[in-house]
Amino acid sequence: MRIGVVAPSTPIDRAVAERAAALAGEAGAEVHFHPQCFASYRHFAGEDAVRADAFVEVANDPAFDALWFARGGYGSCRIAEDVLARLGPAARAKAYLGYSDAGFLLAGLYKAGFGSVAHGPMPQDMIREGGDAAVRRALSWLVDRSPQALEPHVRADARHAAFNITVFSQLLGTPLEPDLAGHVLMLEEVSEYSYRTDRAMFHITSNPSVRRVAGIRLGRCSLVPENDPDFGESEEQIVRHWCERAGIAWLGAADIGHDSRNRVVPFG
Amino acid sequence: MRIGVVAPSTPIDRAVAERAAALAGEAGAEVHFHPQCFASYRHFAGEDAVRADAFVEVANDPAFDALWFARGGYGSCRIAEDVLARLGPAARAKAYLGYSDAGFLLAGLYKAGFGSVAHGPMPQDMIREGGDAAVRRALSWLVDRSPQALEPHVRADARHAAFNITVFSQLLGTPLEPDLAGHVLMLEEVSEYSYRTDRAMFHITSNPSVRRVAGIRLGRCSLVPENDPDFGESEEQIVRHWCERAGIAWLGAADIGHDSRNRVVPFG
Repeated sequence: MRIGVVAPSTPIDRAVAERAAALAGEAGAEVHFHPQCFASYRHFAGEDAVRADAFVEVANDPAFDALWFARGGYGSCRIAEDVLARLGPAARAKAYLGYSDAGFLLAGLYKAGFGSVAHGPMPQDMIREGGDAAVRRALSWLVDRSPQALEPHVRADARHAAFNITVFSQLLGTPLEPDLAGHVLMLEEVSEYSYRTDRAMFHITSNPSVRRVAGIRLGRCSLVPENDPDFGESEEQIVRHWCERAGIAWLGAADIGHDSRNRVVPFG
Repeated sequence: MRIGVVAPSTPIDRAVAERAAALAGEAGAEVHFHPQCFASYRHFAGEDAVRADAFVEVANDPAFDALWFARGGYGSCRIAEDVLARLGPAARAKAYLGYSDAGFLLAGLYKAGFGSVAHGPMPQDMIREGGDAAVRRALSWLVDRSPQALEPHVRADARHAAFNITVFSQLLGTPLEPDLAGHVLMLEEVSEYSYRTDRAMFHITSNPSVRRVAGIRLGRCSLVPENDPDFGESEEQIVRHWCERAGIAWLGAADIGHDSRNRVVPFG
């Protein structure tokens, strides 16, 4: 089992990469961090072309069984369309795992019919409290497709997708937006004011394409900055409010989020 | 000339309202601040129903020649669809002026075929340095349709629209999105990190409906928080980058923004 890691958004520290690689060894996988993961150009892990080339190189290399996103941040939307246009047959045979900003690329891959695209922990999660467990969980999905790694509401007879709320909002209507009709849509958020989550949920649930989902589940919304004045509604209340207004089924909580408990949600 | 003021987002102070009303008197207008402007409920100037009712009351009242948005903030997207469904003939005969969060309602009004919808200063702009000039400019448009109030690139033989970048992003694909094919689209931003503006411009320029605009002009992007690391591109560079990628004509600067120099852009 060989896993290639690339960083379409922001760079990862070598020490963090080495710790994740050690855990991969224990899990029976060989992890290769593409040198691009450590590149730095302004906000990004290298210029757009550098990040796109690294992604395409690993995705198209049949020696890798999986492409693992190093971390989130910001930057994958800038390379997504370029990357997707250059992927060949070996890329389609691969698993893809990441979350947060990686959602732009996960969306585009799923839209393009890639069969093994999943929302779940990344090497950078090593730095979280309890991060070892998150990385081991990701590896157990990548190596063994362990059912224990899965978000507990994932069912074999249903279709699913999972996204960060802001990222999902920002890909609606773009060429990256997949058809999620009939899917259980799981959402999560981090470091966003409640009024922004409210506004993003207006945007998401008012898009006719989203109204065709089977329903919405909400993962954890963490590190919410204090609203002044108090917004007066929890993130769950916000999402339920917009689901009700849009006629979208509210399905309850999802065990995903920007934390070490984040479980894996395979798309489809 | 009678102008009714409502606050579909957040409340305004009475002292600010009184100063704006005094300037209106000098301009030959009578301004009525609906009591809802001073209401307070959590984040908002009253509950959703209170704000919606006030907007509908003023819009449908033939005694008012114009509806002036008190200020921005957040909240108009929560009431826009309810409001638009309840507007009658007197509402269509009225002028509407505001910007920032008011953009959700301006968009919906313009989409519904209202003939006099404009992006420009609001009473709350009184609190800015030089705010008197902004409010006088707004009044000169409301009372006299003064050409001096207009954004200098507004031409009689072209169509225009103006929005805050984040607000415009968050209404794409919703029932509020107007058809801006052939329009000069003017954008502005305030208090957003450069990476967020970059992401929003990806979203905006990747939507096929937006690619039909005649071109984009950029107003001022003010109070940009410091990016760590430095984003390395100005807001103009960001917008030009995405225009170029999307095949949208870059038309240059626009004299709009969250400041006292903000000029008026009538839609259409």
